[in-house]
Amino acid sequence: MDELKAGELILLVEADGKRRLITLQAGQAFHSHRGTIQHDDLIGKPPGRVVYTQLGHPFLVLRPGLHDLIQNVKRVTQIIYPKDAAYIVLRLDLRDGKRVLEAGTGSGGLTMALAAAVMPSGKVVSCEMREDAHRLARRNLRISGLGSVVDLRLQPLSQECVEGRFDAVFLDMKEPWQFMDLVEGALVDGGYFGSLVPTVNQVSALLDALDGRNFMDIAVEELLLRPYKPVASRLRPADRMVAHSGYLVFARRVETDDKARMMFSPIRKMHREKWLGEKNGNDE
Amino acid sequence: MDELKAGELILLVEADGKRRLITLQAGQAFHSHRGTIQHDDLIGKPPGRVVYTQLGHPFLVLRPGLHDLIQNVKRVTQIIYPKDAAYIVLRLDLRDGKRVLEAGTGSGGLTMALAAAVMPSGKVVSCEMREDAHRLARRNLRISGLGSVVDLRLQPLSQECVEGRFDAVFLDMKEPWQFMDLVEGALVDGGYFGSLVPTVNQVSALLDALDGRNFMDIAVEELLLRPYKPVASRLRPADRMVAHSGYLVFARRVETDDKARMMFSPIRKMHREKWLGEKNGNDE
Amino acid sequence: MDELKAGELILLVEADGKRRLITLQAGQAFHSHRGTIQHDDLIGKPPGRVVYTQLGHPFLVLRPGLHDLIQNVKRVTQIIYPKDAAYIVLRLDLRDGKRVLEAGTGSGGLTMALAAAVMPSGKVVSCEMREDAHRLARRNLRISGLGSVVDLRLQPLSQECVEGRFDAVFLDMKEPWQFMDLVEGALVDGGYFGSLVPTVNQVSALLDALDGRNFMDIAVEELLLRPYKPVASRLRPADRMVAHSGYLVFARRVETDDKARMMFSPIRKMHREKWLGEKNGNDE
Amino acid sequence: MDELKAGELILLVEADGKRRLITLQAGQAFHSHRGTIQHDDLIGKPPGRVVYTQLGHPFLVLRPGLHDLIQNVKRVTQIIYPKDAAYIVLRLDLRDGKRVLEAGTGSGGLTMALAAAVMPSGKVVSCEMREDAHRLARRNLRISGLGSVVDLRLQPLSQECVEGRFDAVFLDMKEPWQFMDLVEGALVDGGYFGSLVPTVNQVSALLDALDGRNFMDIAVEELLLRPYKPVASRLRPADRMVAHSGYLVFARRVETDDKARMMFSPIRKMHREKWLGEKNGNDE
Repeated sequence: MDELKAGELILLVEADGKRRLITLQAGQAFHSHRGTIQHDDLIGKPPGRVVYTQLGHPFLVLRPGLHDLIQNVKRVTQIIYPKDAAYIVLRLDLRDGKRVLEAGTGSGGLTMALAAAVMPSGKVVSCEMREDAHRLARRNLRISGLGSVVDLRLQPLSQECVEGRFDAVFLDMKEPWQFMDLVEGALVDGGYFGSLVPTVNQVSALLDALDGRNFMDIAVEELLLRPYKPVASRLRPADRMVAHSGYLVFARRVETDDKARMMFSPIRKMHREKWLGEKNGNDE
Repeated sequence: MDELKAGELILLVEADGKRRLITLQAGQAFHSHRGTIQHDDLIGKPPGRVVYTQLGHPFLVLRPGLHDLIQNVKRVTQIIYPKDAAYIVLRLDLRDGKRVLEAGTGSGGLTMALAAAVMPSGKVVSCEMREDAHRLARRNLRISGLGSVVDLRLQPLSQECVEGRFDAVFLDMKEPWQFMDLVEGALVDGGYFGSLVPTVNQVSALLDALDGRNFMDIAVEELLLRPYKPVASRLRPADRMVAHSGYLVFARRVETDDKARMMFSPIRKMHREKWLGEKNGNDE
Repeated sequence: MDELKAGELILLVEADGKRRLITLQAGQAFHSHRGTIQHDDLIGKPPGRVVYTQLGHPFLVLRPGLHDLIQNVKRVTQIIYPKDAAYIVLRLDLRDGKRVLEAGTGSGGLTMALAAAVMPSGKVVSCEMREDAHRLARRNLRISGLGSVVDLRLQPLSQECVEGRFDAVFLDMKEPWQFMDLVEGALVDGGYFGSLVPTVNQVSALLDALDGRNFMDIAVEELLLRPYKPVASRLRPADRMVAHSGYLVFARRVETDDKARMMFSPIRKMHREKWLGEKNGNDE
Repeated sequence: MDELKAGELILLVEADGKRRLITLQAGQAFHSHRGTIQHDDLIGKPPGRVVYTQLGHPFLVLRPGLHDLIQNVKRVTQIIYPKDAAYIVLRLDLRDGKRVLEAGTGSGGLTMALAAAVMPSGKVVSCEMREDAHRLARRNLRISGLGSVVDLRLQPLSQECVEGRFDAVFLDMKEPWQFMDLVEGALVDGGYFGSLVPTVNQVSALLDALDGRNFMDIAVEELLLRPYKPVASRLRPADRMVAHSGYLVFARRVETDDKARMMFSPIRKMHREKWLGEKNGNDE
């Protein structure tokens, strides 16, 4: 009763690990140098099984999950990795009914994760100024089936993107610090702000912009994902890994004042920790 | 219109970073060595602001997000960290309408994340054999407001927990490999399996159990979260970090056969990569 | 024939992992809340054995290695961790006969590693302006037996510290970029420069100072050491680890010119890599 | 007075980062697709400068340091990375005069680091059973100028390699646990044992072998090196990094007994920490 249908997006996995997304169409065939698979041999059959090309090479046939979609859809911009997308969703406290503003959309990888989180009654508004990215994001959201809660806009981030207040705002752009007045105004009381930037210089500039505005509970974090070779008798990490995707900056939108800002300031905390560290001193 | 109400769970954050969850009750007071805050001064007011004790110490008043809940609810068992919970949700492809089986519940930290993901029309069935943990999880889900889609059961993982097929199964237990026949039977075609285990010996045992059964697309991963001191002019990582929460093992439930299993085997892939590496050789 | 002698520094290791350096003295006793050990029971005996207090608690008696010395000598300043000290020695290409300039000395932890590396015919000149640190470093080098090749100076880094040319210069100070003219003049052709700084802002300032001067082959690196619980049947990383000791910056002193500097510039390399990355593009 | 000489090994670094070791020979030329450099233009000149090919491409001319040698000499076996080699030297407490036994030699990368550390009066005995590796190591030690303190032997690790006692033994082989009786007998009182193994299964087997023998102060560690793109205004980690070189296992050779072994056992420590952790409990 849950068979693959024509028009559906599926994931083919090869024995060497290569992964491809294709859309099933009656009468079509998938060709690779390992041989051919007829779409008609998949349509009407259950997912989650192995099929063989006429040359005898096995392919795993799966419905793609969000993890597969993020990693395997076409893109024209730097990817936001699944590890980061998942953590952003949690950190922005997204779930059914929440309203989130994203800029820029890029190829729509994170947009899919935001959409999956706020379905069915939430809303994602996502602005992008590059037309090629906007168009590709539109296509990626359509084939992933996650587009229904998403409002993709071909426009730079501006007050025009802000209709009503948002529960969360996420900025994936070169100079997020230019937009903090807008973000401050767009968020509900206690709302969630997040941003991903690749360089430490950008983190510093963004922290400077948060300072003195109505943001607190500021965190800077990064996630490293270490993959292992899944062999029981010779278990070990993979040889190489992604060393860096980006720094994640999070904050909450709050009404504050100068005194509180001063008392909560991270630099004050740093000094106190240093002082405590020195008081505890050293031992021989 | 979105003011704090009596009976609501809120998060108080102190200037030194200490975080506490409390339930607002008319006429009550929050006491700390920094002074007192009257609940009545919070009820009916918006969240996301700073209040002062009678001694002049500021506290940040927030509605707790899922990240706060996971980290700050009471627990009697080892925590699943937010970074891992978020990634598990993505890896298991959870969203509105999905059905997921969890064992054991523990203190309910991950259960909250699973529930938030499958709301409003999905379902989480979660089994736990320790009564203290089960009771605490029940209370944590109640105060977090995420209990409506969760069926908490005080029983060991067994066929009794399995009603109908699940889209995903997650095992957080000492010997997950003992239950792989049950998991194989409980999952839909192409369904998602995940587990978190703290030791490498457990990873090996689990990989052995997956081998020869109907699971493929196996991955072993771990996530490291590195926090930074958020000071613009002296940006640097924190002094210490969590070095290990657990190894994450993921797989898809598929119909396979001996030939495919052999051709997809990670050890075969390892040998091929090694061979390619040696062929590419070395340079001086 | 290699017995412990009065006057020798030894390391006592307790069952719970606590480590202490003490100097053996005839007639003295070591007291702890686990009981007492008479120095006379150690003097004249071989190292590398277990002794018991009168209360029956075992202590491991060892000659301290450089790793133990760096971690366990008294200090008044931030430590340079063994992992970093070892790598600095390798990166600066230190070995018998080399001449190295260090500033500041701090408590002498790195100085010990530099000294061990250039013995017996090399030289370490180390400047420090804090008198308490200078005095403690003097004491630490004396008890470690590594002081013979070290010239400790109580003075700020200046031309006075530079007698003849050095094979390598290492700066462990707040603003190393203030001293790059001096370093450039102090190094032999092709000589090695290194520095450890805790913040990213300092790394940027130092890179700026290297740029436009006669330095090339510039590298910025950091080392993370992950300890494991050494239990065969439950092997896993420790719960917590040091998240950050410092960023390491290395460079070679070379005669260069504007054209070469431009063609070797890391920003040019970054652009080329980005361009290659985009050319290789994306796949679905 | 310190000019480059014919017969000397030098390092050429290209603008794109490519590094090559070549031996200077009068009348010879270095050819690349960037053009040609005459050795005679380098001989008699100081190192540490930029030269241009006839096509105008700059090359940096350096004397190679140990770091360059380890990374750039020819090899027929898996490399021990500089970060690990440096740390091994520190952990084994190697310095002038120490005697160290290594098996297997491999291509001699670590052997060079061991030799540089114990020069001029120490000794490295290194056994290797593969003839191609042995021969290559011999050549690598010769061209690096570090061979004088090294005794390379074409033989499997056995009692024949052990002449007198060693201060340290390092095993880089598939099954180091097979040789622990030999190692126990080969080490002086308090001597240092180290090993590098790539898989967790090997770590467990080695820990099992150390257990019950005269080894204590056991540590399992791994080092991760994270490189950065050294651009002041866009400072960020490199895109990819080595995820795994190997697990490092260290121990000290001690005279012990069953009671001490039990009281110092890591599993006992693990239980105690767990108990303390649970006692400290959780907070809401």
